[in-house]
Amino acid sequence: MERGGFKAEVISTEKNGQIHLNFYGKEKSLETFFEEIKPQLHESIQSIEKNMKARGGGLLELSLIDKSHILDGYFYIHATFETLDAMGANFINSCLEKMAQVFEEEARNYELFQKEEIFPEIVMSILSNYVPECLVRAEVSCKVDELTTKHYDGKQFAEKFVRAIEIAKTETRRAVTHNKGIMNGIDAVVLATGNDFRAVEAGVHAYAAKNNYYGSLTHAKIEDDTFTFWIELPLAIGTIGGLTSLHPLTKLAFEILQKPDAKELMKIVAVAGLAQNFAAVRSLVTTGIQKGHMKMHLMNIMNQMQATKDEKSKALVYFKENAVSHSSVEAFLKELRS
Amino acid sequence: MERGGFKAEVISTEKNGQIHLNFYGKEKSLETFFEEIKPQLHESIQSIEKNMKARGGGLLELSLIDKSHILDGYFYIHATFETLDAMGANFINSCLEKMAQVFEEEARNYELFQKEEIFPEIVMSILSNYVPECLVRAEVSCKVDELTTKHYDGKQFAEKFVRAIEIAKTETRRAVTHNKGIMNGIDAVVLATGNDFRAVEAGVHAYAAKNNYYGSLTHAKIEDDTFTFWIELPLAIGTIGGLTSLHPLTKLAFEILQKPDAKELMKIVAVAGLAQNFAAVRSLVTTGIQKGHMKMHLMNIMNQMQATKDEKSKALVYFKENAVSHSSVEAFLKELRS
Repeated sequence: MERGGFKAEVISTEKNGQIHLNFYGKEKSLETFFEEIKPQLHESIQSIEKNMKARGGGLLELSLIDKSHILDGYFYIHATFETLDAMGANFINSCLEKMAQVFEEEARNYELFQKEEIFPEIVMSILSNYVPECLVRAEVSCKVDELTTKHYDGKQFAEKFVRAIEIAKTETRRAVTHNKGIMNGIDAVVLATGNDFRAVEAGVHAYAAKNNYYGSLTHAKIEDDTFTFWIELPLAIGTIGGLTSLHPLTKLAFEILQKPDAKELMKIVAVAGLAQNFAAVRSLVTTGIQKGHMKMHLMNIMNQMQATKDEKSKALVYFKENAVSHSSVEAFLKELRS
Repeated sequence: MERGGFKAEVISTEKNGQIHLNFYGKEKSLETFFEEIKPQLHESIQSIEKNMKARGGGLLELSLIDKSHILDGYFYIHATFETLDAMGANFINSCLEKMAQVFEEEARNYELFQKEEIFPEIVMSILSNYVPECLVRAEVSCKVDELTTKHYDGKQFAEKFVRAIEIAKTETRRAVTHNKGIMNGIDAVVLATGNDFRAVEAGVHAYAAKNNYYGSLTHAKIEDDTFTFWIELPLAIGTIGGLTSLHPLTKLAFEILQKPDAKELMKIVAVAGLAQNFAAVRSLVTTGIQKGHMKMHLMNIMNQMQATKDEKSKALVYFKENAVSHSSVEAFLKELRS
C-alpha cells in the first residue's frame, strides 16, 4: 500500500451466446430472412427480459455469422447481452432458446426458403463462456529500487522477475503452471462468492490461447526505473442470482468483501490473481517454490504420520534449518520415535 | 451398460518439469557441460528419490532444450518423471530445485565457462501442469438404431449429435462452453478425491488449444451404423500423497470408488467427463438445456423467495407444464400469495 497498492479497471462487460444453425441453401436468402426477422426476435423475449431491462440490461445486438467456409453449412446468430450484476447464464440461455424457437417457426413460413425447399435448422442454442468482451485489468507498480530487501537488490530482482514472465509467454509448459497459480488466487474468490469456477477457468484459459499460442496471462516491464506488473483477463461473474444469495458462507464472503457489485468483484478477483502470481514468481526467482510450500506441507505430512503435539513442535524447530521432503520428515520421526 | 458401457484406457503416465536457464555464451559449451554433468544431476537427487524409486518410479530423463531462437538466451532442462500413484508435484519440485543447485554450483567451476567468463544462470525450477504425455482416453459406442427413443429417431439424433461436436471443434465460442461442461463432470471427481482442480483445469484447457486453435475435447463419429463418442485428455492426478489421505471426505470418496489406483482414477475421471458431455449435448440438440437446468434451478429461486413447503409443492406441479424463468417463478408466487 505504501508504494501505491493495486489498481484495477473494468474494460468491458459484454456477455454473449449463440444460436447454431445448419443451412445449405443460398446464403443471401438466410441473410435477408435474418434481417427481416430480427425485430421479431427482439420482441419475442420481452417477458424474459422484463426484469433485466428494468435494471438497464438486456439483449444488445444480434448478428449473423457465416462459418460455412470452415464447416459446410454452419452459420450462427451471435447475440450479445448486458447482464449487469448477474452472471446471466440462465437469462441468456432462456433468451436464446426462445429466439431459436421463433426463428425456426418463422423460417418454415418464409417464402424464399419455401421456394428453394431448403430451411435453416437449429442445432443448439447456448451462452458462451468465452467472454473476451467482458474484461478486467489489474496492475501494480513501483520504483525498481523500492523492491530492494535485505535478501536481494531491487534492480536484479525486477529484471529476473520480468525474465520469468517472458519465459511464461514463450513456453507453454511454463505458461500452464504459471496461469494455474494465478487461478489458485482467482478460484478462491470465485468459489467463496458462489460463482461458477468451471466457467471462469474455461474462459480464462481459452483467453490465454487467443493468439494461437498458449501463454502467460500476466505481463511485466521495467520502464524509466519503474517496475510494472499487470493482468488482463475475461471474467463473467455475478453478485446476484444463481447461488450467490443462497449459501450462508457466500453471504458471509460478500459481507467480508463489503458487498461489491459485479464490476467491483471483477476487480477484486483480478487483483487476487495478480497478487498470487507476484508471490509465486517472487518465490520462484529467489528462494525457490519449495521452501514456503513444504513448510506448509510439513503439517500435512506430520498429520498423515499421526504425529503427536510434542513431535510436531520438535519438527517445527528442526525443519527451520533443514529441507522438508516426505522422506526427510519420515526419517526425522523415525529417529525421534526410536 | 446394456449397449457395452464406457471403456477407458491409460495411454501414458509421464510427468514433467523444467529448470529454466539464461545463457548468453556459446551453445556448444552449454551442451557439453550438460552432457558431462548429467550423471551428477541424477545422483544428486538419490535421497529425494529413494521412496519413489523403491516403488518403481523416479526421474526418467533429462534433456537440454534450446529456445534461444524464440527468446534470446533462453534454454531449459526438460526433466521427465514417473510418479506412479502420486500426483508428484512436491516430489518433482524438490528434485528440480536440488538439480538446479548442483547445476549452478558445478557451472561456476566449469573450465569452458570460466574461460569465456559467461555462466549459465538459473531463472527458476518448477514442474509443469501441461502433461500431454500423461493421457487417458474414454469411449462409448453403440449401434445408431439403439439410440432411438419414443422422442426421437436414433439416426437423426446421432447425426445431430455429431454435428454439434463438429461445431465445437470449429468455433472457439462454442468449444469453451462445451469443454466447461466436461469439466463440470471432471472437477466433481477431482475435488472429491482431494486432487488439485486448478492443475487439472489448466492442463486440460491448454491441451484443448494444442493445435493452435481452442477446440472440443470430445470427438464423435458414425461409421458402419455405429455411433462412437470419445474423449482424450491429460490428467496428472494421485491417489496417495497430498491431501488424498488427510481429508475424511476424501477417504470416503475413495471408498465409494472402491480404492482405485492413479490409473484407475484417471479412467473414472475421463468417463465422468465424457458422460457429462453426452448428457449436455443430448439436451442441447433435443429439448434445449434450459428445460432440465431450470427445473433444477426452480428450487433455488423458490428458496431465494423464502417459499413455504406448500408453495414449493404447488410450484412443482405448475412448472411441469410451464417454462421456468426467474420472472415466471416470481409471477407465480405473487399470484399465489395475493
